[in-house]
Amino acid sequence: MGLPQTVGFDEQTNELLIIDQTLLPVRLEILRISEVNALCDAIKKLKVRGAPAIGVAAAIGLYAVAYRFEEVSEDGFFYALEKYAERINSTRPTAKNLSWALERMLNCAKACKGQGIEGILSAMKAEAVAVRDEDIKTCKLIGEYGETLLSDGDTVMTVCNAGALAAVEYGTALSPIYTAKEKGKEIKVYSLETRPLLQGARLTSFELTENGIDTTLICDNMAATVLKSGKIKGIFTGADRVTARGDAANKIGTLMLAILAKYYGVPFYVCVPYSTVDFSLQSGDEIVIEERDGDEIKSAWYKETLVSPKVKVYNPAFDVTPAELITAFITEKGVKKPSELGFKL
Amino acid sequence: MGLPQTVGFDEQTNELLIIDQTLLPVRLEILRISEVNALCDAIKKLKVRGAPAIGVAAAIGLYAVAYRFEEVSEDGFFYALEKYAERINSTRPTAKNLSWALERMLNCAKACKGQGIEGILSAMKAEAVAVRDEDIKTCKLIGEYGETLLSDGDTVMTVCNAGALAAVEYGTALSPIYTAKEKGKEIKVYSLETRPLLQGARLTSFELTENGIDTTLICDNMAATVLKSGKIKGIFTGADRVTARGDAANKIGTLMLAILAKYYGVPFYVCVPYSTVDFSLQSGDEIVIEERDGDEIKSAWYKETLVSPKVKVYNPAFDVTPAELITAFITEKGVKKPSELGFKL
Repeated sequence: MGLPQTVGFDEQTNELLIIDQTLLPVRLEILRISEVNALCDAIKKLKVRGAPAIGVAAAIGLYAVAYRFEEVSEDGFFYALEKYAERINSTRPTAKNLSWALERMLNCAKACKGQGIEGILSAMKAEAVAVRDEDIKTCKLIGEYGETLLSDGDTVMTVCNAGALAAVEYGTALSPIYTAKEKGKEIKVYSLETRPLLQGARLTSFELTENGIDTTLICDNMAATVLKSGKIKGIFTGADRVTARGDAANKIGTLMLAILAKYYGVPFYVCVPYSTVDFSLQSGDEIVIEERDGDEIKSAWYKETLVSPKVKVYNPAFDVTPAELITAFITEKGVKKPSELGFKL
Repeated sequence: MGLPQTVGFDEQTNELLIIDQTLLPVRLEILRISEVNALCDAIKKLKVRGAPAIGVAAAIGLYAVAYRFEEVSEDGFFYALEKYAERINSTRPTAKNLSWALERMLNCAKACKGQGIEGILSAMKAEAVAVRDEDIKTCKLIGEYGETLLSDGDTVMTVCNAGALAAVEYGTALSPIYTAKEKGKEIKVYSLETRPLLQGARLTSFELTENGIDTTLICDNMAATVLKSGKIKGIFTGADRVTARGDAANKIGTLMLAILAKYYGVPFYVCVPYSTVDFSLQSGDEIVIEERDGDEIKSAWYKETLVSPKVKVYNPAFDVTPAELITAFITEKGVKKPSELGFKL
């Protein structure tokens, strides 16, 4: 892979490393974090984002912070640990993996009570490594299974960022593409820009081109035109939560893509670790959808170049709607069905 | 209507008046044009846009320019007239109404050959008025027919700008909504922002709220979520060209909307003057689609407020894709159909 790990662990210095995603695609900068304020700030401001990446960053970050505690008693250590974990958890309360990872680190520490602070820290370090390694392994397996669906020369489509930048490496939706490339298959990708926050434009098309994948960026409303062309072999997306019956909540616009895929007979694949499946829910209607600030849509929130210069763009200004999808034409001569248009009045 | 005419004619001063659309929604400014360079600049830079509006602006503009010719012979007058018409026509060669309106003005002038420059100008003035008045009448009739499809309290959806700002007044797709309002029906509108040039955000939601219509702005990829809610009574769009069998070319994203409308059983209406129907074409595949500069997508091209403060925004961050639209989940335990998810392995 052409990029460093999105979330890394310097086991020598006991620091968390993250790619600062707010600077992409303009600048690739690694932040070293060992202080709780910096960690909370990084999660809050989306310097690290994507559910799996946030979970791993929280696990390593909590260890890095605890390593620097000045408490000498175990009681003082645990008091500080729980307080800091709570603070980190409050940065983004809806991200499932965040609380899951913090809880796992706390449970690991608690299991070592009485072994002294050094013993607890040593167990926590191993647990942070395990959280990271499991994420890598899960994403790699998703890639292995997914790449069997791809043949050399295929073109696929994706939305938002469920790639390496949303996990430690490889990601979920993009893992089959990277794996296919490693096996010598050439895969091309159409990346939807993903309004309003443009994760597809800023992140997905950046990481794909950095990893040598031929990538074309389109606006979300151009997906139908590209699917109609017949060149898309499959759509690959991630998901934030999947119900037991298989309804999948994901970034806005995924539903649109799935309906278009069905209309044009294109397979629609959701790439997720099993931990994303919420077996307590049956219908997707039970999933609460976060509604965000309208200013994300109303104002231009970026000032620099949005997209890596390596990214190609396809920008058709119009599309054609076939008559069978049109209920009626409203004209100055009345409301006419498509079949009635040809008769000049 | 709460706004001045998009394209106006000051018959006292013989000047073309246009709303400078590049300044909307920040500033409402009327330009007075009587000089050929200013006219070409206004069309080129989209100060006036929308096929019907461009046609009317060209007709009135050509008259305003000709009125100021200093030629004393009819031959000199016609030489200048044809030269200037050609120049205006070259500003946007693909806009159908532009060449149509200029040809109509030239034919009108030629029919008066021998009557002296004053006589020719007088006929041209009447023709420019006729072009404007016919546009108004056509749009009003579209509104009359279309409003019969709307009931008090209905909510509809539209894309791009096929409103008053794309014609002299009322527009095509928005004319039924304005007409319904005049008849005492309260209609709410969801306006798609229409990437990449954001005509829905900058123009449609501006003119609708200025005319007292309750308007909610969404990103293009949010249309499926709104349609799924069941609150949309119909989709109203314009079209740039319609074939004899009823395939309709319109702003990118219209095809997506039509497919979503079919999936959710929502009527899909295309509002057009009959002059938009190209009876020489059968299939929409024969229509050449303009491909524009990728920089429209890659770079932020605006710096000021994009959207009128009167406009509401709906900004869901996620949507839910029902299991029946998902071909398979790609997980670390293999590729699973939705029905296979519930069995924990």
